Amino acid sequence: MSTTTVAGEIRLKRVSPEYWQVTFALPPLNIFGPANIPQLEEVVSLIETDERVKVVVFDSAIDGFFLIHYDFLAKPEESAKFPLGRTGLQALPDMLVRISRAPVVSIALIRGRATGVGSELALASDMRFASREKALLSQWEVGAGLVPGGGRALEVLLTAHELNGELAELYGYVNRSLPDALLDDFVDRLARRIASFDKEAITETKRLVDIASLPPDSEIAPEWEAFMKSLARPATQERIKKLMAQGFHQPGDVENRLGDYVGQLGL
Amino acid sequence: MSTTTVAGEIRLKRVSPEYWQVTFALPPLNIFGPANIPQLEEVVSLIETDERVKVVVFDSAIDGFFLIHYDFLAKPEESAKFPLGRTGLQALPDMLVRISRAPVVSIALIRGRATGVGSELALASDMRFASREKALLSQWEVGAGLVPGGGRALEVLLTAHELNGELAELYGYVNRSLPDALLDDFVDRLARRIASFDKEAITETKRLVDIASLPPDSEIAPEWEAFMKSLARPATQERIKKLMAQGFHQPGDVENRLGDYVGQLGL
Amino acid sequence: MSTTTVAGEIRLKRVSPEYWQVTFALPPLNIFGPANIPQLEEVVSLIETDERVKVVVFDSAIDGFFLIHYDFLAKPEESAKFPLGRTGLQALPDMLVRISRAPVVSIALIRGRATGVGSELALASDMRFASREKALLSQWEVGAGLVPGGGRALEVLLTAHELNGELAELYGYVNRSLPDALLDDFVDRLARRIASFDKEAITETKRLVDIASLPPDSEIAPEWEAFMKSLARPATQERIKKLMAQGFHQPGDVENRLGDYVGQLGL
Repeated sequence: MSTTTVAGEIRLKRVSPEYWQVTFALPPLNIFGPANIPQLEEVVSLIETDERVKVVVFDSAIDGFFLIHYDFLAKPEESAKFPLGRTGLQALPDMLVRISRAPVVSIALIRGRATGVGSELALASDMRFASREKALLSQWEVGAGLVPGGGRALEVLLTAHELNGELAELYGYVNRSLPDALLDDFVDRLARRIASFDKEAITETKRLVDIASLPPDSEIAPEWEAFMKSLARPATQERIKKLMAQGFHQPGDVENRLGDYVGQLGL
Repeated sequence: MSTTTVAGEIRLKRVSPEYWQVTFALPPLNIFGPANIPQLEEVVSLIETDERVKVVVFDSAIDGFFLIHYDFLAKPEESAKFPLGRTGLQALPDMLVRISRAPVVSIALIRGRATGVGSELALASDMRFASREKALLSQWEVGAGLVPGGGRALEVLLTAHELNGELAELYGYVNRSLPDALLDDFVDRLARRIASFDKEAITETKRLVDIASLPPDSEIAPEWEAFMKSLARPATQERIKKLMAQGFHQPGDVENRLGDYVGQLGL
Repeated sequence: MSTTTVAGEIRLKRVSPEYWQVTFALPPLNIFGPANIPQLEEVVSLIETDERVKVVVFDSAIDGFFLIHYDFLAKPEESAKFPLGRTGLQALPDMLVRISRAPVVSIALIRGRATGVGSELALASDMRFASREKALLSQWEVGAGLVPGGGRALEVLLTAHELNGELAELYGYVNRSLPDALLDDFVDRLARRIASFDKEAITETKRLVDIASLPPDSEIAPEWEAFMKSLARPATQERIKKLMAQGFHQPGDVENRLGDYVGQLGL
């Protein structure tokens, strides 16, 4: 069996009562699977209800991987067993939407590959800061409805190209990319700064911007349904099978350069 | 008579059944006129209905001109004779909107001047890649409703300035500008990559993003009506007449630096 | 008493009948207070009704300060005495919205600090050009509903960081930043160019883009109400009091590096 059946853990560290760190430690690749759904649900519920927390930083404990795709090896019934979330969406998009709307500032600290679920988590966060040397973002699934702006969303989605930190910054896919050596300290200072602000001011500002900019849940549902439907199609299954034979879901070249491999499946 | 009455041709080349190239060859300036409407209509209909094509690249065979303004020398009745398109819009905006919504990835490869109709075609495409040294984009007419993002649309529209590749990239007017020597190869690789993807996945992704981002046809109609109305105004006609006397619609300095000349008409 | 009770003046200079300059000369810091509301109202009314003016440049006569925050020392009844504006909004947001919708091109020439009211005026303008070396923009209040694009609005609003010209350009918070020595000439040329255009074309273009992009007044009202409410909260009042004790509203380090001081209030 693949090592991905080891669920790993999603660590919650309270740097202070106001400043939390959520670290993905799902070795060896930070693949997100059904076993991680209740783990993330617990974290999201805490973020939503804690009265003191003001800022949450999402990062990774796995070298080279911020958080990547869903576990395609998981049995479909494992993913399907979760009830619809509070928003009426399926468990994963439900949690992403709730992070977007939570009365807490969320920051994605992106080092390594952030694709699939990882890209969606980054886009669901309020801010995204990426390592200039070590971040790679990509997204093919039309996920949480929060696609990068500037008219470049279609390129990101339709090419499945991996964008490095510099290009992701130009496209507005991340707020900013920073030299890798400075990234952690930059985000830490930012989080501490926000943690020092008045919680009600944060909550109110986020609420007002969200009203103006977030899509309604009703627009998000069809996107996830389309993704699930496309996953079930024979053409998709055949491509995934081909990728599996090449080493998908295992440490190695396929996962390290997935964008290149995806571009060769149909040749 | 001006050479622009020579309609030239809009060439459709099937690089492969999945990857098509549409090349504007309307010498000497790639001015778009009424004679080109049925030509483009034929191409757009093929793009919409062909079952295999996945990606279309729009480029130019005319040195220095991607595609520029409408033929102001054409008799009004020549432009008016076409029935409203399927979207309920006039022939030209109808085709642009249909390109935006077609189940095919459209890429504008921009080398030379892309103004007026050329800028609108570029904006109607899913992606735009520009020559860093040789692309110039501008737009004054409020056209297909797809104005460049980032709050800079008003500058583009209200100044009628020509943006070079670098500035167009910063503004998100194009996805990216590349060194001229690398541009063709970059777009060709991208098109081949997309051509290797599953058509249904492409179609579905585009459809979902379009729902979230494209303006409804009802918002586009007033913009074209306003453009047509403004064209008929005496003040506009006088400015066009002045431009004509200077060499508008002929190869030479006025067409090469139209943005500068437009800025001197009212002095 | 603080020098800010000196209202100073908002100067209107007609460079030509088509090209006006509005200069904030509110020494020593270009703090905007209740006494400036009728002054700005007069200017905005003239901009709205003059039949010849086509372009207005907003700039500053105060070294280091484009226009900054509201006068927190003003008595609340001084601010409250103004009737609701024509849009149904309070006096200040009413004027900002009217600038956005005026049939005239507005350009903010930003040199020095543009925060609070200054940032909102810049965002209400059609275009923003900033000194690369000397501009600093920031905004915490969720103001006129026109937040900078590209998914980075939340960072600007939630961190209260001051963005320099270069970063403001990357984020699309300003259209472009230019070397300080070139900025005035650049904006002057641009204004003269626009002043030479046909007024009806300008008006119509702006109207069509505004329809597609400006939020309705009904969305702006709750934002200002939230700001006013937050101002009245004890937690806010305490922070303002702390800032006052440090030198807020007076020339010196607090006003020069307000972003830093704001980040230390809650520590």
